[in-house]
Amino acid sequence: MSGLRPLSTAFHAAARDRLRARAEAAGLDGLLLLRAPNLAYATGLFLSANERPMGLWLPVAGEPVLMLPELERENSEAAGIAQARFYGEFPGEVPPVLWMLDEIGPRALAIDSLDAALLDAARARTARLALTDHAMAERALKQPEERALTAEAAAFADLFLQRLHAAAGDIVAQGGTEADLMADAMAHARGALFARHGEAFAGTPMGITASVHSGPRAALPHGAVLPRVPRPGETLIAGIGASLGGYHAESGVTLVIGGIDADQRAIMTAMQACNDAAVAACAAGRTCAEVNDAALGALRQAGLGEAIRHRIGHGMGLQGHEAPWLAPGDDTPVRPGMIFSNEPGVYRPGRDGYRTINTMIIAADGVHVPSRFQAETPIDARVVAL
Amino acid sequence: MSGLRPLSTAFHAAARDRLRARAEAAGLDGLLLLRAPNLAYATGLFLSANERPMGLWLPVAGEPVLMLPELERENSEAAGIAQARFYGEFPGEVPPVLWMLDEIGPRALAIDSLDAALLDAARARTARLALTDHAMAERALKQPEERALTAEAAAFADLFLQRLHAAAGDIVAQGGTEADLMADAMAHARGALFARHGEAFAGTPMGITASVHSGPRAALPHGAVLPRVPRPGETLIAGIGASLGGYHAESGVTLVIGGIDADQRAIMTAMQACNDAAVAACAAGRTCAEVNDAALGALRQAGLGEAIRHRIGHGMGLQGHEAPWLAPGDDTPVRPGMIFSNEPGVYRPGRDGYRTINTMIIAADGVHVPSRFQAETPIDARVVAL
Repeated sequence: MSGLRPLSTAFHAAARDRLRARAEAAGLDGLLLLRAPNLAYATGLFLSANERPMGLWLPVAGEPVLMLPELERENSEAAGIAQARFYGEFPGEVPPVLWMLDEIGPRALAIDSLDAALLDAARARTARLALTDHAMAERALKQPEERALTAEAAAFADLFLQRLHAAAGDIVAQGGTEADLMADAMAHARGALFARHGEAFAGTPMGITASVHSGPRAALPHGAVLPRVPRPGETLIAGIGASLGGYHAESGVTLVIGGIDADQRAIMTAMQACNDAAVAACAAGRTCAEVNDAALGALRQAGLGEAIRHRIGHGMGLQGHEAPWLAPGDDTPVRPGMIFSNEPGVYRPGRDGYRTINTMIIAADGVHVPSRFQAETPIDARVVAL
Repeated sequence: MSGLRPLSTAFHAAARDRLRARAEAAGLDGLLLLRAPNLAYATGLFLSANERPMGLWLPVAGEPVLMLPELERENSEAAGIAQARFYGEFPGEVPPVLWMLDEIGPRALAIDSLDAALLDAARARTARLALTDHAMAERALKQPEERALTAEAAAFADLFLQRLHAAAGDIVAQGGTEADLMADAMAHARGALFARHGEAFAGTPMGITASVHSGPRAALPHGAVLPRVPRPGETLIAGIGASLGGYHAESGVTLVIGGIDADQRAIMTAMQACNDAAVAACAAGRTCAEVNDAALGALRQAGLGEAIRHRIGHGMGLQGHEAPWLAPGDDTPVRPGMIFSNEPGVYRPGRDGYRTINTMIIAADGVHVPSRFQAETPIDARVVAL
């Protein structure tokens, strides 16, 4: 047993204190949190998300108040938040978000997310309404407990890749498909994750998501896993997400069926340079957009600019994809506590595709990479031996 | 083989014509569709939803234009929509939704969903901006092809229940848990679904979701499936969703471990009356809120008013839960073509819980119920024999 446990009630109480401080610094009376990951961060409640709005009113002064549908009355008791109010059903005579604002009264507050169709009515119910996601800004700076969950999740994404690497040759030689490769490695990694952590983490989100693509279809960044048999010389892209206690990590690699040719090796080498440039720019505390530029610049330098289809990475935490974004338009400086994916991708439509993924945990002493598969598997070893 | 196929390009072209007619009737130049199910309805594209906005500009006059992230360039070609424009990445220097409005130019249009933080900027870019989901209103009236997919999906939700009913006694007698019961029936139903439809429906959403709860935890409408062994005399709630070609159906039942006592039989009989009241009110063309009142009234008449935790049902289609809602606050009249869940629920916290689910397809000649498990399994047969 690892001794890892879901985040404690003390963690969530401290998170609420940090959020209160942000609200106070913004001159607000409090925050109304409506986004499910923000609610989980502030309370530890992972309620089943659906069309029924669920909220936490977090005043700068006074006790927090859960605002939930009647359906979640008993489920909400686990949070240990004394005050809770409930509405009957969705949609209801009054939209639930407006009911929440009526309960709060006319205060100066920020809402993390709001449907534009409710904006005028929401403004009429508040003394001042800011549309700012203060909780996301705080969540971007992970605490040590959150980093530990992310690092452990990354180990199970790696486990999928290790199994795939070890077993793919036999499976493909026997006529196995992408879907067969995925099912085998998924059963292995998921089984290990639940055997190790299933009991301690019951009731929190935990699992493995994966995609395995080969051949010309590997040139599509997104797509369904199909019953297709990978052929010699083709690339096989595996992108794996794992989550533990609600925290996400990723690991991914591109393997080649049979053996790697010179063209493929050149691309994989350029992707390694791209990965390393992202790490260096994060370590240097550049902005998110600058990290993206530095990383993709390494692909462009290798003559692969036309093959770029996406940014270098995204934040990870209680969401698989979350702010900040290592992408154009995000000028957030990279800071200790942030966690990002690092995903060099090269796509040549009709021909082939390549993508690797690491998880980067930014720390005061540099960039930690808990996903180990790439570091432990040099480019020349990324072969599915037939 | 059933001969069922995913919706055709002709279906989606006809859907676009119906949406254009709605836009014209509303005095608009066109619709900007941003919600993923609306995009799927109008194009057949089931793109992998993430933080990157994806849209379809559907003008009353002229050709539709897909507006997508660069990442989806090749994936979008399947829709056969000639015009497409692409933005580089998210978040980008300009929020992608505002980029779309810039591309469209200052027109009178409706957007189906918009972040309130973008409302002022969106208004500045449009001649007239309506925040109305015209596509959802059209999607609520299912065409014959959509009803056929729903009915077929319901058969696989039933298949899960049939397997659970047949196998649960052996599994529980051998110490099997809720999670074991779920895994067994899931493998059976999912295997059958993919064996029958996997090839023809490749690339469209297809699958089974399920929850199996027993004992006092059955008193919670939502919750995680756990490694808990059901005990004699307890209720076992199974709620199953199945989807085919993107269309959702549900079937669900409450079984009793060992044998049904008089109290349990009285509750199950009241739930049957509740189910039947919902069907009758739908057949009579009442409003959605009236159907909810009529159905829940049957539970109240049986003295179970305190045990109600949720509305009687929700719409189903390209979303598992969608408008209209059989709930307070929805005054939409029930009309032929609509599809709803019918979910009587009785929850006695700390004691036990009960829920059944049917799928109702409203037709001109009455209410069709493609979920057959309840009709084929009388209350006295809803026993897990040990």
